[in-house]
Amino acid sequence: MKQNIYDNPLFFEKYISLRNSGVTYNDFVEQPAMKSVIPTLHGKLVLDLGCGAGHLARYCIENGASRVIGVDISKNMIEQANKENKHEKINYIRMPIEDLELPDYKFDLIISSLAVHYLEDYPTLVEKVSKLLNKGGVFLFSTEHPMVTARREKNNWIKDTEGNRLYYAVDHYQEEGKREEHWYVNGVIKYHRTVSTLLNTLINNGLILEKIIEPQSIPAGLEIMPKLIHEARKPSFMIIKASKT
Amino acid sequence: MKQNIYDNPLFFEKYISLRNSGVTYNDFVEQPAMKSVIPTLHGKLVLDLGCGAGHLARYCIENGASRVIGVDISKNMIEQANKENKHEKINYIRMPIEDLELPDYKFDLIISSLAVHYLEDYPTLVEKVSKLLNKGGVFLFSTEHPMVTARREKNNWIKDTEGNRLYYAVDHYQEEGKREEHWYVNGVIKYHRTVSTLLNTLINNGLILEKIIEPQSIPAGLEIMPKLIHEARKPSFMIIKASKT
Repeated sequence: MKQNIYDNPLFFEKYISLRNSGVTYNDFVEQPAMKSVIPTLHGKLVLDLGCGAGHLARYCIENGASRVIGVDISKNMIEQANKENKHEKINYIRMPIEDLELPDYKFDLIISSLAVHYLEDYPTLVEKVSKLLNKGGVFLFSTEHPMVTARREKNNWIKDTEGNRLYYAVDHYQEEGKREEHWYVNGVIKYHRTVSTLLNTLINNGLILEKIIEPQSIPAGLEIMPKLIHEARKPSFMIIKASKT
Repeated sequence: MKQNIYDNPLFFEKYISLRNSGVTYNDFVEQPAMKSVIPTLHGKLVLDLGCGAGHLARYCIENGASRVIGVDISKNMIEQANKENKHEKINYIRMPIEDLELPDYKFDLIISSLAVHYLEDYPTLVEKVSKLLNKGGVFLFSTEHPMVTARREKNNWIKDTEGNRLYYAVDHYQEEGKREEHWYVNGVIKYHRTVSTLLNTLINNGLILEKIIEPQSIPAGLEIMPKLIHEARKPSFMIIKASKT
């Protein structure tokens, strides 16, 4: 099943309002970490899988990429991208990542910010990515951390009666597959995969692991969103950079 | 501080009795996973870091290795190795892994079973290992899983009033360093490191990641030690295989 939660009107409204606030986990945790390891973009052809409203696509162009192709399943998101981050060097394509076929292209960089955990079939994605990369090309993606996706029940910060966070609950780690959670709306589906599956699938498809990041908040985030201090207690994201040999 | 808990008489007695029972996490979880990815041993020169009583050293010789050098800090363990697993092709050396200097050797395989989490200085270990490996040589080691070492408090299976395991508690993930626990005796010291530190340190020292395993129990283990079913809920170990370019 190809999930298109971002075309749920309620979800989309809440999500856009959150993203536009500039006060999110993306702004202070995930994006700074992604950008800290993004390779030199000058003259590069970039594919952005799950481009959303095009923030990262735009960032790539502003930092020298020659062209970005952004792909997203959501009509709402592609419309938003064409409104907020339109650029002559960016092509936004509305399509499920799973259906992507670009037989005439080879990319220098394939990026994907927090989309991989929505995809059911990770091995096929990685196989496709590997074929779409030039030799020496880089696959850089972020995903929810396996410690976060593991437990079937959600709201995994266990709290005392006064609401203080005691510790983070992990369970069902080796049972990969579908997890359902409430995030603005019911029935948001994510897919849990172990750290070893995330990494070995890349290795098995001819990619070399370059860097793994389990990011914490940047200092500015801790001031504006004090709860980000808990990112030091368990990571929310895993960022993986791999290159094609 | 170089820890030598295995020369504590009480600890050693309990530990040897446990290991000789043949009914341990090592027998059913960690060792099968290590052996499943051990490279061809025929004619190989092997270094075993934290060789303990020499079981793995002996296994390497029985599977074709030309010579094994086993290193362990513990006098008790080296004596045990010379009793139980003496072999003309094995040299057991009593020495802290941290003090190891073998300037005239290059190894085809460096293995280490559940010793790395006792070492305070992981980067220096990896630097040394990388220098001691032949080109194409393999570093294969197991360590306690970062999810297990993370929380400062131990006994992390949170249980209900009837003793059922509810979930596994993680905390303090990004605070690397010393953790103290009771394991037969008080004051057993282990060092917590994140997944990203474990892996990036290898990459930064010229090693290529080949495989990461978060093992579960083999079927025989589930019959003899039913509690190993909980290994599916959170992994106890991480096994990492990397090769020298």
